[in-house]
Amino acid sequence: MADMLSRGSKILASQPFSVPLGAELVEFPPGAAAPKIPIRTELMQQHGFVHGGVVAYAADNALTFAGGSVLGTAVVTAEYKINFVRPAAGKFAIARATVIHAGKNEAVCRCEVYASGGNGESLCATAQGTVARLGRQQDD
Amino acid sequence: MADMLSRGSKILASQPFSVPLGAELVEFPPGAAAPKIPIRTELMQQHGFVHGGVVAYAADNALTFAGGSVLGTAVVTAEYKINFVRPAAGKFAIARATVIHAGKNEAVCRCEVYASGGNGESLCATAQGTVARLGRQQDD
Amino acid sequence: MADMLSRGSKILASQPFSVPLGAELVEFPPGAAAPKIPIRTELMQQHGFVHGGVVAYAADNALTFAGGSVLGTAVVTAEYKINFVRPAAGKFAIARATVIHAGKNEAVCRCEVYASGGNGESLCATAQGTVARLGRQQDD
Amino acid sequence: MADMLSRGSKILASQPFSVPLGAELVEFPPGAAAPKIPIRTELMQQHGFVHGGVVAYAADNALTFAGGSVLGTAVVTAEYKINFVRPAAGKFAIARATVIHAGKNEAVCRCEVYASGGNGESLCATAQGTVARLGRQQDD
Repeated sequence: MADMLSRGSKILASQPFSVPLGAELVEFPPGAAAPKIPIRTELMQQHGFVHGGVVAYAADNALTFAGGSVLGTAVVTAEYKINFVRPAAGKFAIARATVIHAGKNEAVCRCEVYASGGNGESLCATAQGTVARLGRQQDD
Repeated sequence: MADMLSRGSKILASQPFSVPLGAELVEFPPGAAAPKIPIRTELMQQHGFVHGGVVAYAADNALTFAGGSVLGTAVVTAEYKINFVRPAAGKFAIARATVIHAGKNEAVCRCEVYASGGNGESLCATAQGTVARLGRQQDD
Repeated sequence: MADMLSRGSKILASQPFSVPLGAELVEFPPGAAAPKIPIRTELMQQHGFVHGGVVAYAADNALTFAGGSVLGTAVVTAEYKINFVRPAAGKFAIARATVIHAGKNEAVCRCEVYASGGNGESLCATAQGTVARLGRQQDD
Repeated sequence: MADMLSRGSKILASQPFSVPLGAELVEFPPGAAAPKIPIRTELMQQHGFVHGGVVAYAADNALTFAGGSVLGTAVVTAEYKINFVRPAAGKFAIARATVIHAGKNEAVCRCEVYASGGNGESLCATAQGTVARLGRQQDD
């Protein structure tokens, strides 16, 4: 498990887009993943909340890693859907994804994104999508 | 129209998260919106393609602006779904959203994200979602 | 609770489309709902499995009732997304929906559809969507 | 083309669930499909409009047939998302789906559902989803 977390963290660190966001993988057991992002001004929209793009990024990355934890690391999120339920504010955002069903080439995963501040965690968004092996998509 | 584009561009420029992404609103007529993002290394994942989070950000922002073009600018994307159909590479990504149906408080919008390079544009992702007036959500 | 289940069952029984499907509400506590449908030949597609339209109907109805359990019964499913993970076969299908977040006018809900036969339950589909008060939509 | 329509119609007629719904395939060229359903009391919910399950069924079937028109007929809808934008009433509902992107094993398709009555067609719902070869899913 520590080994998986360490490998996952290296993959995340190899994504140029993820590094300045400050995304850090805090859980990566088989069948799940949880990236965490410290909230700061640069990640906001014009109303002082975390930009929806950051919340969606966190959900997407969590889905991909959760799927990858059972399919192998060469995976992509093929599609997902997200509902934003509350503006995200506080100290950090954490996306918690789990695998709902895994086939040979694809996994259907689900994710909740929470914002955490002085008052504990509050749910900001919920997502559901399909993670696919990269090989499968390259066949396309 | 020029006035709408100018106002939309100011809103985009007021989003701390959008500025370093280099997002620029290139079309903003009533019922549509098209933000454009120059592709560069910092926006990539580990395989040399644009990070899915950037593609989703572009789609989300295009949906929000398209919805805002008919509902007024104080809107948020309440939910959306995105299918990634091809890795994004080239010179820039452009998301083109249109309003499918607008009610008093919500608009259902659709968006295509294209990557453009030496060989013309190619479709990278397609999205569909609901944009809602901010007031409505604050009631929640 | 028995009262809610009885009221919910009457609503279901007042839907001309639901009656021949044999849908029966078996759970309807605040924040959740579970309609159950006996599987039989008339509900199948050409490969001998339950038609995806029936699975989606069950999910949609479960989402609507779950949302209605907290918003009041005059609600509709405004949008949802469903992933089919396994063909449905067996004695009956049951859709179990729960409310993830409820505002004043809308609720985001989630649902799993299981098929149940000789070998216990197996997951067939998972869905997520928004249930809205009817009044809000009629404003549109 | 007439041949495709005839083959498609036979497949639709072989689905026990589709026959009593009265679904008829009226267009089935490569890359698209349009099933049509006559509206009648038995397809309604309790408010006198077409049940959302019927609208979703039409969208789902249209997506599957559109995908099948390019992938071959042994396909299923793996996932889709639908937004209901207006209650459906009138003489018939027609779902018009097109292929947005087709790979070897999967196609991303889009669909609009219209209700048609005395006042012409009006948009009732819009959907987007993935159609997959059956073989691929059976591998799962």
